[in-house]
Amino acid sequence: MSGACTLTVTVKCLLLTGANLGSEHEVREKDNTMTNFETNLRVKLPATCIILEMIIIILFATLVEYDDQTNAKYWHKEMAEHNLSNYDNEFYFRYPSFQDVHVMIFIGFGFLMTFLQRYGFSSVGFNFLIAAFALQWATLMQGFFHGMHGGKIHIGVESMINADFCTGSVLISFGAVLGKTSPVQLLLMAVIEVTLFAVNEFIILSLLEARDAGGSMTIHTFGAYFGLVVARVLYRPHLDKSKDKNGSVYHSDLFAMIGTIYLWMFWPSFNSAITAHGDDQHRTAMNTYYSLAACTLATYGFSALVSHEGKLDMVHIQNAALAGGVAVGTAGEMMLTPFGSMIVGFLAGTISILGYKYLTPFLEEKLRIQDTCGVHNLHGMPGVLGAIVGAVTAATATKEIYGEGMEDVFPNIHSGEITASYQGVRQALSLAVTLAIALLGGLIAGFILKLPIYGAPPDTICFEDGIYWE
Amino acid sequence: MSGACTLTVTVKCLLLTGANLGSEHEVREKDNTMTNFETNLRVKLPATCIILEMIIIILFATLVEYDDQTNAKYWHKEMAEHNLSNYDNEFYFRYPSFQDVHVMIFIGFGFLMTFLQRYGFSSVGFNFLIAAFALQWATLMQGFFHGMHGGKIHIGVESMINADFCTGSVLISFGAVLGKTSPVQLLLMAVIEVTLFAVNEFIILSLLEARDAGGSMTIHTFGAYFGLVVARVLYRPHLDKSKDKNGSVYHSDLFAMIGTIYLWMFWPSFNSAITAHGDDQHRTAMNTYYSLAACTLATYGFSALVSHEGKLDMVHIQNAALAGGVAVGTAGEMMLTPFGSMIVGFLAGTISILGYKYLTPFLEEKLRIQDTCGVHNLHGMPGVLGAIVGAVTAATATKEIYGEGMEDVFPNIHSGEITASYQGVRQALSLAVTLAIALLGGLIAGFILKLPIYGAPPDTICFEDGIYWE
Amino acid sequence: MSGACTLTVTVKCLLLTGANLGSEHEVREKDNTMTNFETNLRVKLPATCIILEMIIIILFATLVEYDDQTNAKYWHKEMAEHNLSNYDNEFYFRYPSFQDVHVMIFIGFGFLMTFLQRYGFSSVGFNFLIAAFALQWATLMQGFFHGMHGGKIHIGVESMINADFCTGSVLISFGAVLGKTSPVQLLLMAVIEVTLFAVNEFIILSLLEARDAGGSMTIHTFGAYFGLVVARVLYRPHLDKSKDKNGSVYHSDLFAMIGTIYLWMFWPSFNSAITAHGDDQHRTAMNTYYSLAACTLATYGFSALVSHEGKLDMVHIQNAALAGGVAVGTAGEMMLTPFGSMIVGFLAGTISILGYKYLTPFLEEKLRIQDTCGVHNLHGMPGVLGAIVGAVTAATATKEIYGEGMEDVFPNIHSGEITASYQGVRQALSLAVTLAIALLGGLIAGFILKLPIYGAPPDTICFEDGIYWE
Repeated sequence: MSGACTLTVTVKCLLLTGANLGSEHEVREKDNTMTNFETNLRVKLPATCIILEMIIIILFATLVEYDDQTNAKYWHKEMAEHNLSNYDNEFYFRYPSFQDVHVMIFIGFGFLMTFLQRYGFSSVGFNFLIAAFALQWATLMQGFFHGMHGGKIHIGVESMINADFCTGSVLISFGAVLGKTSPVQLLLMAVIEVTLFAVNEFIILSLLEARDAGGSMTIHTFGAYFGLVVARVLYRPHLDKSKDKNGSVYHSDLFAMIGTIYLWMFWPSFNSAITAHGDDQHRTAMNTYYSLAACTLATYGFSALVSHEGKLDMVHIQNAALAGGVAVGTAGEMMLTPFGSMIVGFLAGTISILGYKYLTPFLEEKLRIQDTCGVHNLHGMPGVLGAIVGAVTAATATKEIYGEGMEDVFPNIHSGEITASYQGVRQALSLAVTLAIALLGGLIAGFILKLPIYGAPPDTICFEDGIYWE
Repeated sequence: MSGACTLTVTVKCLLLTGANLGSEHEVREKDNTMTNFETNLRVKLPATCIILEMIIIILFATLVEYDDQTNAKYWHKEMAEHNLSNYDNEFYFRYPSFQDVHVMIFIGFGFLMTFLQRYGFSSVGFNFLIAAFALQWATLMQGFFHGMHGGKIHIGVESMINADFCTGSVLISFGAVLGKTSPVQLLLMAVIEVTLFAVNEFIILSLLEARDAGGSMTIHTFGAYFGLVVARVLYRPHLDKSKDKNGSVYHSDLFAMIGTIYLWMFWPSFNSAITAHGDDQHRTAMNTYYSLAACTLATYGFSALVSHEGKLDMVHIQNAALAGGVAVGTAGEMMLTPFGSMIVGFLAGTISILGYKYLTPFLEEKLRIQDTCGVHNLHGMPGVLGAIVGAVTAATATKEIYGEGMEDVFPNIHSGEITASYQGVRQALSLAVTLAIALLGGLIAGFILKLPIYGAPPDTICFEDGIYWE
Repeated sequence: MSGACTLTVTVKCLLLTGANLGSEHEVREKDNTMTNFETNLRVKLPATCIILEMIIIILFATLVEYDDQTNAKYWHKEMAEHNLSNYDNEFYFRYPSFQDVHVMIFIGFGFLMTFLQRYGFSSVGFNFLIAAFALQWATLMQGFFHGMHGGKIHIGVESMINADFCTGSVLISFGAVLGKTSPVQLLLMAVIEVTLFAVNEFIILSLLEARDAGGSMTIHTFGAYFGLVVARVLYRPHLDKSKDKNGSVYHSDLFAMIGTIYLWMFWPSFNSAITAHGDDQHRTAMNTYYSLAACTLATYGFSALVSHEGKLDMVHIQNAALAGGVAVGTAGEMMLTPFGSMIVGFLAGTISILGYKYLTPFLEEKLRIQDTCGVHNLHGMPGVLGAIVGAVTAATATKEIYGEGMEDVFPNIHSGEITASYQGVRQALSLAVTLAIALLGGLIAGFILKLPIYGAPPDTICFEDGIYWE
């Protein structure tokens, strides 16, 4: 690859070829010289990973047990006592959905963020690391708040789905700070965010008894605004020094499309993964399917409308087409009707595109929020839209529409304890609580992450794998 | 890519830049200058997307309802009346298969077509757009022809699978015209093709009562010949001006393999997705699994046999290895036997390779059919083979072989209404009908798409993302 | 990306390098000149593929039948006789797991090996070929040893999973010889390895009655040591002549991450695919999930610790993060407890990283084992660890812990036939048998593959697609 060429030419051509696959070896060697003491993670990262894992293992050893569905003894006892068959094991109702969610978390989020030309290793790799950590930590935090049985946290496929959901929220925040943070910072952010996620989830689902099966509020709104505030606190005035790397190249955009398409395809499984058995899972999946389809048409239409020369913009397609899944996260399990889902999806795609075009530059210039992936457009606004749609749909629920199925979706309305309007109020209140905890939590996390001890990259070499990868 | 340059410089630069992704930015800027008024979609694409989605939403609002399995009220009523459990909900029988089919449609077809060096955005992106549109339109058209209940179209997971199937047919046709059409043309083609697909499906499945669970006829034969006729009508005599872009590069071929492998892996789910519960789904999946495995051996063998210097050709591997799935689309649910499936798969791989080697050049030069992806070899001939195998297998069905299982596969033979031979005749007749409707439909669609108002690319810049993507 | 360079040079280089990737064509043409008579497969590969497939079809025709779950007649008879519903068909218990395993075999293994800069076609393509062959051959061999019913091999979804498992073993061995073998050699290796796999499996599962649901012994230990011995016998003293190609480039590492992540995500399905219904499948999946998560934290921690300047090494992340799945392959179905799984995963990740850093160079220099993918670190040592963990966990099983669930996991202990300690001894013995058969088998296979008649590449052009691909 070099041989005959003189060094001068090599260097010149390196300048020319950028994310050149060919001269990788040289680029990497060059990157090494970029590394300075502060970003060397030889002590920091191993210490963080190993200590966190030790804590988790000790807490699992003292607090966590198989639930009745995974414990050999108790499941066989339960089968005998309640005349159940193995088919009644929750595994068969939920595991296929779990796997789809799992793909969204690790492939979907991971590859969606590979669009940056020189940040693919970190996008997929840090996504992998913080997700593997967050799902363990989430098992503990969520279990602590709403999974205790006789002093022990009981776990099974449902807690696995919930842990993945919570992880999704952290990955959304990751999108806001992508390229500007070290893996140590990200793990620390995950520690804080997972904890507050569990608190918020407990307040709105257990205390306020709101419904939010697909997490428009708990996952998307929370993750987005938490991450945006962190990004605000970590504002880098001289980030433009890295702007040549803050963009995509041809193949990095194709890798990102892998992430997009997987998120899009499996979103019906995401929204339906923890809804009630039967019609609820079925309906939620279908509502999401149609919402996303309508959202995609809006995305292509508005992308061509607002872009240069009527062309399509990959950033829009990669992100806005997914807003339809976010926006039916709350109402998807309700009797939203197929055309209702389509209207919500269409609106979500539209506001997402307009956000990328008009709001993101404003946020960056005026509010100093450098939102790398535009999570405000994909998760923030569509999440709020989803919460509002959920509140309205709940407020208009009637026995006439739901029949006996009301019990699964709105148990309190079914029992006559509250009216549908009041459920709507609870939903709206939950959105306010979520926003408050996300903003406050992001502020705290931001200031903790701002300490100059975690090996964050300097402004000149953000969005660059070479700093953390051999 | 070479022209003016001297060989010396070429070699030097090759040495320096290797598999350079890097100079993308410059290439794109250059592409912008290629854009002329005709291919500017700022008005055309938004108008098409938004109007189509509006029509769909209005039709869904007036015509479409949740079916008994997704409607909260009716499912609970049905459970109570028929003593069912939530597990009897169709969701649990079909949703995992649906998701596999969904992956084939969006990842499989989308990435299979990324083999072109400069058409990856359009391959995945237009695939995404027309699939998102087609599945909504298909819900309406298929519902109109065979899903009406009391004046309303009832939808659930089965209709979702059928909508994805119909979409697959459109994507096959997309393969024939890939690189030479604008997204507006493609959406219009989808409008027409989905409609005619539903008509053909109604005739052969409901009127002729043929069996075609995996769609050898309805999906593959129909989609391929429809697309080939469209390609014929849209023949471009000067397409060789774009021939430098009508080929693959190293990484585009790897992206395409993602598509190939996903299609290959999930084809058992595709063929079994709407077969009867129990042994039928199970057997169909297994027959397809073995057919594909045998097909793959044939593909590698014959590729090395017919290619230059005994090497393997990526085009063959990416496509012909899938022909085994197409060819058991009809007979897969029947008692084809595992070795029978293997023979069919082996034959399908063989004719597909021979088609790529000998027939495609003939089609292009003599019949003026510019079949970009070679859909004739992957879907056309194997589809016809599948229809014939299905007719023969049906004609030889006996009570001795099927037992009481006959009712699921051939209800009319089971009830004694018709003989097995007559079922075979119906199958053969269905092939003829499919071919007729596909050819005629393609002709109509082709002439409509030929109007110079949809922003199609000129002959000089086909197979080029830059024309439609920023 | 441009800066110092003059525009003229930029334009020239653009013209030369295109999207480049572009100069592939020239590179390929250049490669053609590398081809000499010995590596021309025009006769060898077609002959091997077609003859093997013919043999398989004949053996299937004479020996293989649908099992009672896939046979229309017998399934309907069984439903009637035992009052079963279609839901009791094994398909619904196992097919989603099968599909996940299938993805691991074809996408997971295939893309994991694409890390080499110029061997992506062969990695995915030969993986595809030998897997498609091996799963057919495995159906026969495994059926012959433990699937015979009245002189016929009965097949269904469980045999499909087992065939995919056996295939996985061959692909592990493929990893050891990657880049240095022709497809004809690989097919031959598959013939031998699948056969011996079935023998070993029969001895340890049927004769010794050991438990090994996820294949720590049968799949990983067997595949790794078989492959390592083959690599030893095929030792190439002058392989350093190809060392410029024996490494990754930026995008090839990203493709490899697709493989890694898919293997990681679906490993819970792999380990649980053939465990008993109910709590067993559920528990196995969950144990694997937590083992892998803990393993990932260990991987990142130790990678930064041992690598140059505290950076992360892609080779570690791509491989060691998976060791947690291997290491709970035996004990995953047992009552290992979640924190126990985490400890095992953490250990597996740690030894895997240390193996890559310190053992692989030793194996290569001292033992002359050129292990391209480091399968010893990913499958070998973690497989042995998994076998030991399994033996210990089995030896400590008590009625108090398992209750009636003991019957599913340890039927012989449940029936009182043997003690738990004795089961532990059987497990340990099985590890020894596995190692013995793998080493001996690898030796035989190695010497057969060493014959200079299969078109293997010369030392100077290993790790190079151009030799076998157009």
